[in-house]
Amino acid sequence: MSTTPPFETLLQTEAKEIETLLDRLLSVDVTADEITRPERLRLAMRHGVLNGGKRLRPFLVLQSAALFDAPRASALRVAAALECVHCYSLVHDDLPAMDDDDLRRGQPTVHRAFDEATAILAGDSLLTFAFDVIASPDTALDAAVKVELVLTLSRASGIGGMAGGQMLDLDAERESPDEAGIIRLQAMKTGALIRFATEAGAILAGASDDDRKRLRLFGEKIGLAFQLADDLLDLTADAATLGKATQKDAARGKGTLVALHGEDWARESLTRLVSEADDLLAPYGEKAGILKQAAAFVASRRN
Amino acid sequence: MSTTPPFETLLQTEAKEIETLLDRLLSVDVTADEITRPERLRLAMRHGVLNGGKRLRPFLVLQSAALFDAPRASALRVAAALECVHCYSLVHDDLPAMDDDDLRRGQPTVHRAFDEATAILAGDSLLTFAFDVIASPDTALDAAVKVELVLTLSRASGIGGMAGGQMLDLDAERESPDEAGIIRLQAMKTGALIRFATEAGAILAGASDDDRKRLRLFGEKIGLAFQLADDLLDLTADAATLGKATQKDAARGKGTLVALHGEDWARESLTRLVSEADDLLAPYGEKAGILKQAAAFVASRRN
Repeated sequence: MSTTPPFETLLQTEAKEIETLLDRLLSVDVTADEITRPERLRLAMRHGVLNGGKRLRPFLVLQSAALFDAPRASALRVAAALECVHCYSLVHDDLPAMDDDDLRRGQPTVHRAFDEATAILAGDSLLTFAFDVIASPDTALDAAVKVELVLTLSRASGIGGMAGGQMLDLDAERESPDEAGIIRLQAMKTGALIRFATEAGAILAGASDDDRKRLRLFGEKIGLAFQLADDLLDLTADAATLGKATQKDAARGKGTLVALHGEDWARESLTRLVSEADDLLAPYGEKAGILKQAAAFVASRRN
Repeated sequence: MSTTPPFETLLQTEAKEIETLLDRLLSVDVTADEITRPERLRLAMRHGVLNGGKRLRPFLVLQSAALFDAPRASALRVAAALECVHCYSLVHDDLPAMDDDDLRRGQPTVHRAFDEATAILAGDSLLTFAFDVIASPDTALDAAVKVELVLTLSRASGIGGMAGGQMLDLDAERESPDEAGIIRLQAMKTGALIRFATEAGAILAGASDDDRKRLRLFGEKIGLAFQLADDLLDLTADAATLGKATQKDAARGKGTLVALHGEDWARESLTRLVSEADDLLAPYGEKAGILKQAAAFVASRRN
């Protein structure tokens, strides 16, 4: 008998569907305008993407899209595009010049399984591919909606979002940021893509500005919760549970809010953030049930 | 008295305008959705882009847009976006794991002027920024046109285009490609972005499918000419340096069509390609004069 809670079962089911789509998108078949897909690069992209992640960001896209009755097939493609961006960032972050990680989820990182040059190109190609997938005619959405998705995703991912956050993280190894600096770093490095994930559902459905803002704020809350939970895990979990090295933050002298304010403060903050996230979804009643569970899941995750 | 030919003067004038726009786009001012622009990353992006290039690809966007009377301000932004993609590819190609170059146009490459991690992030951010610039409300174009530009640019740049060509180039160091392989490699690595540049003008203007195909083919012709001229220049430089560079190319297993068929064949091919490119533009009469000059310039360039 399975003891997996219903929410986690749903998360797994949705992850499988995203993976099926990613597998298909990264097949040998070229689309119009493509000349050929070099096999080594295609396999490296697949290695970087089809790696058994939880697919939390795609899940949030799917559930926020469902909240506004956006077309499921379109939401799946936007979710897959977002996962390509997330995975490209992992491939590049793992490079020797960045975090220099040999393993991710128990498997060799892309530059270990292939080589550094291939890993750089695989990351580049995954990032590029994300915009291809959104703009493709197969993503049956109004052109104005696609443009808004491209714009919001590029800003969440670029210098003013995720990549900028990664830069601040490197800066932090040279000079420790203060509390405001830590908050900004995290809002960019991990927060921006999570915020995009929840907002994307509202964009997909052409929801009102008010709905969009609400889902965006919801994403910001769970982005903060995600990072706090991550910092707590880094402090308390062992490498076997996480499948990656722990206590790296402290070893590198990277400040976290948990290090500044302590574990008790962090757990209280998590409770508060989940409550605030729930409140934001109050107007949607029971229809927002799964998103609320997602917020609780993010705050309480153990790996 | 200046002896610069009129075409090259125009190329320089247009390059300056593109640089002014790139300078403005990469200022400290954040756009909506951006949190902040970390200074080190912004400076590295600027170093990678504002480096005195000829801006041939942006020039082709501007002139093909003018051919169809597309709005100049929109064309400038699309041209700047394309240059961001081109420059990101140079920043990443120069990395130690790729071509390992210390200098570009007489200046330290981005990873030399900053560091490797910053160069990786600067390339990533320039690529991401290209899609931001196209999708932005400031690029006043129909949403359907923007989507088509995003789609065509992403496919020209990704696994089935430029990045895939770079992978084939790395593969070529392991196993020498045959003639068809060399042609495919070059069509992807350098051809795809040049083809996008000329097609973009037609897309920008919402021109007919026939016009689009014509400009796309024109781009393919001058992409081939660009590469042949490049290979010829390499050969000339080789002679001047007593074959040192030739030995390096041979060691890397990088075959060229010029090496296969000889200089005479290459010069005849260049003449033929320029003539074919001209023929494609025949329906546009004198209005296509500058694009025809561009084809001749690409085929005859000396640096």
